[in-house]
Amino acid sequence: MKFPLILSLLSCAMLGSVSAQEFDPADLETARELRASALAGNGGFDVVEDLTTRVGPRLAGSPADARAVAWAEAMLLEAGFDRVWLEPATFPTWSRGHERVAVVSPVEQDFQALAIGYSPATPAGGIEAEVVMLDDLAALEAVEPEVVAGRIVFIRNRMERARDGSGYGPAVQARARGALVAADKGAAAVLIRSIGTSTNRFAHTGGMRFDTAQRRLPAAAISNPDADQLERLMGLGEPVVIHMDIDAQINEAYTSHNVIGQIDGAVLPEEIVALGAHLDSWDVGTGALDDGAGVGIVTEAARQIMALDERPDRSIQVILFAAEEIGLWGGRAWAQARAEEIGRYQVAAESDFGAGRIYAMAAKVQDSARGVIEAMAAELAPLGIELTDRRQAVGGPDFIPAAPLGLAAIDLYQDGTTYFDYHHTENDTLDKIDPEDMAQNAAAYAVLAWLSAQSPVSFGSGPALLERDED
Amino acid sequence: MKFPLILSLLSCAMLGSVSAQEFDPADLETARELRASALAGNGGFDVVEDLTTRVGPRLAGSPADARAVAWAEAMLLEAGFDRVWLEPATFPTWSRGHERVAVVSPVEQDFQALAIGYSPATPAGGIEAEVVMLDDLAALEAVEPEVVAGRIVFIRNRMERARDGSGYGPAVQARARGALVAADKGAAAVLIRSIGTSTNRFAHTGGMRFDTAQRRLPAAAISNPDADQLERLMGLGEPVVIHMDIDAQINEAYTSHNVIGQIDGAVLPEEIVALGAHLDSWDVGTGALDDGAGVGIVTEAARQIMALDERPDRSIQVILFAAEEIGLWGGRAWAQARAEEIGRYQVAAESDFGAGRIYAMAAKVQDSARGVIEAMAAELAPLGIELTDRRQAVGGPDFIPAAPLGLAAIDLYQDGTTYFDYHHTENDTLDKIDPEDMAQNAAAYAVLAWLSAQSPVSFGSGPALLERDED
Repeated sequence: MKFPLILSLLSCAMLGSVSAQEFDPADLETARELRASALAGNGGFDVVEDLTTRVGPRLAGSPADARAVAWAEAMLLEAGFDRVWLEPATFPTWSRGHERVAVVSPVEQDFQALAIGYSPATPAGGIEAEVVMLDDLAALEAVEPEVVAGRIVFIRNRMERARDGSGYGPAVQARARGALVAADKGAAAVLIRSIGTSTNRFAHTGGMRFDTAQRRLPAAAISNPDADQLERLMGLGEPVVIHMDIDAQINEAYTSHNVIGQIDGAVLPEEIVALGAHLDSWDVGTGALDDGAGVGIVTEAARQIMALDERPDRSIQVILFAAEEIGLWGGRAWAQARAEEIGRYQVAAESDFGAGRIYAMAAKVQDSARGVIEAMAAELAPLGIELTDRRQAVGGPDFIPAAPLGLAAIDLYQDGTTYFDYHHTENDTLDKIDPEDMAQNAAAYAVLAWLSAQSPVSFGSGPALLERDED
Repeated sequence: MKFPLILSLLSCAMLGSVSAQEFDPADLETARELRASALAGNGGFDVVEDLTTRVGPRLAGSPADARAVAWAEAMLLEAGFDRVWLEPATFPTWSRGHERVAVVSPVEQDFQALAIGYSPATPAGGIEAEVVMLDDLAALEAVEPEVVAGRIVFIRNRMERARDGSGYGPAVQARARGALVAADKGAAAVLIRSIGTSTNRFAHTGGMRFDTAQRRLPAAAISNPDADQLERLMGLGEPVVIHMDIDAQINEAYTSHNVIGQIDGAVLPEEIVALGAHLDSWDVGTGALDDGAGVGIVTEAARQIMALDERPDRSIQVILFAAEEIGLWGGRAWAQARAEEIGRYQVAAESDFGAGRIYAMAAKVQDSARGVIEAMAAELAPLGIELTDRRQAVGGPDFIPAAPLGLAAIDLYQDGTTYFDYHHTENDTLDKIDPEDMAQNAAAYAVLAWLSAQSPVSFGSGPALLERDED
C-alpha cells in the first residue's frame, strides 16, 4: 500500500516552499500541551520500575530475554497502542559463568572483575601468568609479540568524564579489540581497566568484537580501584602474577524479538515516526539506565500522544529492540527488513543514554525540512534543548544499521556526565534514575514525535539523504 | 618499676593548682610546630597505601592477619620507634566461603549480599523459604513466633546519614541481634538491609553478637538497592520466595597480636600516652578507611614527634590492635593485661572512623586536668576542632574494654557524613581517602599526644575517674 507514500512525496514536492515548512498553529499548540503534560508526568518511571522489578537483568538470549519480550508485548498493549507485534532477530549468544581474577604474587588479593562479553573461557582451573602493563590499544598494537607472549596483558587506559560521553569511544577500543590483537601476539589473556568513570568498585562489562574467524583471548575488566591497585603493585618493581579463571561460553544462535507498538496515523498511516529504545540489558545490574530508562521515556512519549483527543497524521511507532548490547542484532534485523521501504520512515530517534536531561539536538533531514526542524527546536527550547549546527544524526545505536539506507534521524543529546558511573555495572539500578529528568526526556520525545508526525514536509529518508554534504 | 608512677601522682598532688595547669610556653610552641608540620605532610597516607597495597584485606585470623602483623612490626621499626613489640590476643575466628541470595518467586533475580560475621552456614545447597518483612529488631522481638517460623525474616530498617554517624547505632541492632532473636522464634534465616548509607550496590558486612550458648541463624545483608527491590517485590502482593546459600564457618581459636611501638619518654618514661588504631579489617575492600586510615594517622602523629629535636616527657605509644572488627578481641586482651596498671596511662585516643576531618573533641579526665584540656583545645581550634561540653570519652572502640578500669581518654570526632558509604563494603579502598583530610587528623593527634605527654598534671586514669559525675 504505497499510496500514502506517493502522496507524501507529492505533498513534499508541491509544498516544499517556505510557507509549507510552517506547522499548522493548532499542531504547535498541541505540541505545547504535550510538553506541559509530559513534564508534569513521571516520564515513564513506572515502566522502568515495572521492567526492572518484574524482569530485572535481561541479557539477550538468556531466559530473562523471553520474559522481557513477553513483558514488553503486554506493556505496550496495556498502554493502548493500536497494534503491537514482534519481529524476529537471531544472534549468537554468550553466557557468563563465573570470573575470578586474583593477584597471587607478590601479594595475594582478589580483584572485582567481570568477563567481557563474548570472552571465551580460560582452561578449567584458570591460568596463571605474569602481567604486562600497556597504556592503550595502540601500545598493544605496537608491542613486539615476545613482550606479551604467554603473559596477561593489562591495558590501563582510563575513560575521561564528559557531558557528552565522548570519553567512552577512545577508551573502549581496549575492550572491543584488545583480546583479538593480543591473541595474534600470543598473549595468554587480557585484563582492562573498566571503561567507566566511577571510582566505586564495580567492574564494567560490555562486548568485544564478535568475529568467528578470529581467535579471541579470555578477557575481563577490573574496577577502577582495582586497576589503581594493580598499577601500584606493578610499581613495586617485582613481577606481578595473576590467576584468572573465567567460565563463559558462546551458545547456539537464539531468536529473540523486536517488540513494536504502533499508533496508527490518521492521514498518512503508512509513514512512520520511529521512536526506539532497547529492551535487552547486560546481565549485571537491572538495566535501569541502560536501557530501561529509554523504554520508559519513549513509551511515555507515545502514551502522552495517545491521551490526546486527536490522532497524529503519520503513524508513530515505539520499537523496543532486541540484543543491542551484544551487537545491535535487533537493529540489524530491523534495518534488513526495511531495506526496500526506508522511505516510509519520516524519522528515527532512539533513547539510549540513561535518564539524564536532554540539552541539545541534531537532525539528519533533507534540506527542505530544515525549517521544520528549526520550528520543532523552538518548541524544545523551553526544555533547555538547543539545536546544534550538526547536520548528521543516526537516531541512536539501534538505527545505525539503517544509516546506510539513508534513514532520516534526530539525535537528542542527554547529559551523560554520570552515565558511565553506572552503565554496564552491577550498580545500574532503579534508584539511579530521577523521574523529573525522565519527564523532561519524555516531553522532548513527545514533541519530537508529534511534530514529526504533523510535519508539512517529508524528512527525506532514502538514498538521497546519503548524498548530502557532510558537516 | 613503679617509681615514675608514684612520682607522677606526687607531682599531680603537689602541682594540681591553677598555675600548674599551664603548659610550659616552649611546649606550646612545639605543639604549634607539630601542627604546622603535620598539616604540611601527607597524614600517613603512605602508610595506608603500603598496608592496603601489600597486605590488602586482613580479616582477623585469616592468613592475611599474620602478614599484617609482620607488616606492622616492620613498619613501626622503620618509622623509628624506640621499641616495637607484639602482645597476643586470642579469639574465635570466622571465615566466609560464599553467599548467594536470590529471589526465585515471583521473579528470578540475584541479590548482592554478604554474610554477616559469625553467621553459620546454611545446609549444603541452601535453603528456600518465603520472606516475612519486618520494620526493625523491635518488630522482630514483638512478632508472634508462628509468623516467622520456617521463614526468612527480612529486617528492612535503613540507616540515616549523619555527620557523627549516629544513624549507625539504632540500625545496627538488626545485624547484631536479628539472627539470635529470629532463631528463638523458629525462623529459617535472616536478611537485613545493609547498615550503610550508600545507594551503590554494595552489601555491608559486619559482625553479629558472638554467643556460643545461643543458637544463631544464617544471616546476610543485601545492598540498599537490593533491599529497595525486595520491598518492591513484597509490594506486588504475591509470596516472595528466596533461595539463600551461605558457606561460612567458625574456626578454632587463633592468636594474633596487638603491635605496639613506643617513643620512650625523657622524664616520665613509665607514663604512657596511648594512640590507637586497629590493624585488622573485614575481608571485603582493602580496609583503607576502616582502619588503614587510623593506622596511618596515628603513625604519622608519632613520626612528627619523633622528628623533633626534643623527646616527650612521657612515653608515647602507637597501639595497632588485633581483631577489632570481630569483637574488640585485641582491645580486650590489652585491657586485661593492664588491669593492675591502668594508672600508668595518661590518656588513650584511637583513630577509627575513616579519614574525615576532625571537628570536635571530648575528654574524660580528672577535674583538675580540665584546664590542661582547655589549653590543648586552644591549640586544636586552628584545625577547626571545638571542645565539647561532653565529659565522657572512651578513646575509641579498642579502649572500651579498658573503660571500666577508669582509663582517661580523649575522643576526637571525625566528620563521618560519607564514612558509612564505604565502611565494611568491597568499596572501602584507598581512593576514598583524601590525604589532606588525613593530614588534619595527624596534626590533631600529634598535638594531642605531645601536649598529653608534656602535661603538668596527670589526667587521672584509675578507679577514681569512674566516680565522677556523669554528664
